[in-house]
Amino acid sequence: MTESATPRGRPRDPRVDRTVRQAVRDALAETGYAGLTVDAIAARAGVGKAAIYRRFGSKAELAFAAAVHDIDVTAPPDTGSLVGDLYALARIVQARAANPVAREVIPALVAELGRNPALAEQFRGRFLDIERADFTEICARAVRRGELPGPVRPDIAHLMLAGPHFAALYAFHVPVDDALLLDFARAAASALKTLAVSP
Amino acid sequence: MTESATPRGRPRDPRVDRTVRQAVRDALAETGYAGLTVDAIAARAGVGKAAIYRRFGSKAELAFAAAVHDIDVTAPPDTGSLVGDLYALARIVQARAANPVAREVIPALVAELGRNPALAEQFRGRFLDIERADFTEICARAVRRGELPGPVRPDIAHLMLAGPHFAALYAFHVPVDDALLLDFARAAASALKTLAVSP
Repeated sequence: MTESATPRGRPRDPRVDRTVRQAVRDALAETGYAGLTVDAIAARAGVGKAAIYRRFGSKAELAFAAAVHDIDVTAPPDTGSLVGDLYALARIVQARAANPVAREVIPALVAELGRNPALAEQFRGRFLDIERADFTEICARAVRRGELPGPVRPDIAHLMLAGPHFAALYAFHVPVDDALLLDFARAAASALKTLAVSP
Repeated sequence: MTESATPRGRPRDPRVDRTVRQAVRDALAETGYAGLTVDAIAARAGVGKAAIYRRFGSKAELAFAAAVHDIDVTAPPDTGSLVGDLYALARIVQARAANPVAREVIPALVAELGRNPALAEQFRGRFLDIERADFTEICARAVRRGELPGPVRPDIAHLMLAGPHFAALYAFHVPVDDALLLDFARAAASALKTLAVSP
């Protein structure tokens, strides 16, 4: 999925996108999330603040887009089994979501989404729908393999893997290692088998 | 489980606890979370700010303890089946966690926990361990009924139900109705069966 328009539908210059994102990553490395300001990013990237606000609804979304969630990610690999596909996806998510910047940025973004329904809607369209499409693909493969009797609603399938993972990382602070990621994948595969609708 | 000592081990007056909690609930109803201050709570409750800080590590924890999570909650009812017990618990959690105050307070608290490891440790001891004990009890019942071959680590069992529920409410904004709560319970029961360790 590519991203060729702002939330308001205006075309965007991908070079400016890349420059802004790199500026955010550099600033995060130097000052951390607490020291991040839109003014400083604009100065560092050599663009106006308006160019940044056209792209991102808040400081938290800016940091999330630049440092955590690459919106150009491709579909997860086909490993040959439902558990394998879910485990591969959980490892990709862990690499993005468990680093110190993500641990600071994601809870801040979630708190902002709760206060700002327009930002939540934008977040859904730009990031969440991409993640949910991965689950549509993984479930479709499992149906073709005969591992699932039918599809699962993608937003619910997404919750079955991402919910425990997200809660472990950010809310309940359970240490996440590869063994636990495999448990998440095995548990999510069982959950999907229970929730799948027969055709 | 009762709460008879501060995190530092000092005895506390339960009447002051109740007065402070009521003051927080009244203030939240009047001014919302954004207008809540420790000064205003202290004045309303007729206690010093120190009495509040002895009890609560932050504004978010204060609001959470008063308005969301009753720490004197009792064990969930035995409904006669693992799915039934998980569904009953999910409905109790939904009543606490899906109201507008909780939707504002909980993401704010989670963001604070990420910034403040000491607060996270206190939160674990005061709230999370109580929730995890519910899962120890529910899994023990399921083992006695022959529905599980053995126990599941309580922190992981907790993630299997609370993770999707928490992520739906606060992070990914999936509407949660009774049908989805039942799906969460059915999915968590399957997950627990997959993760349970044979004796």
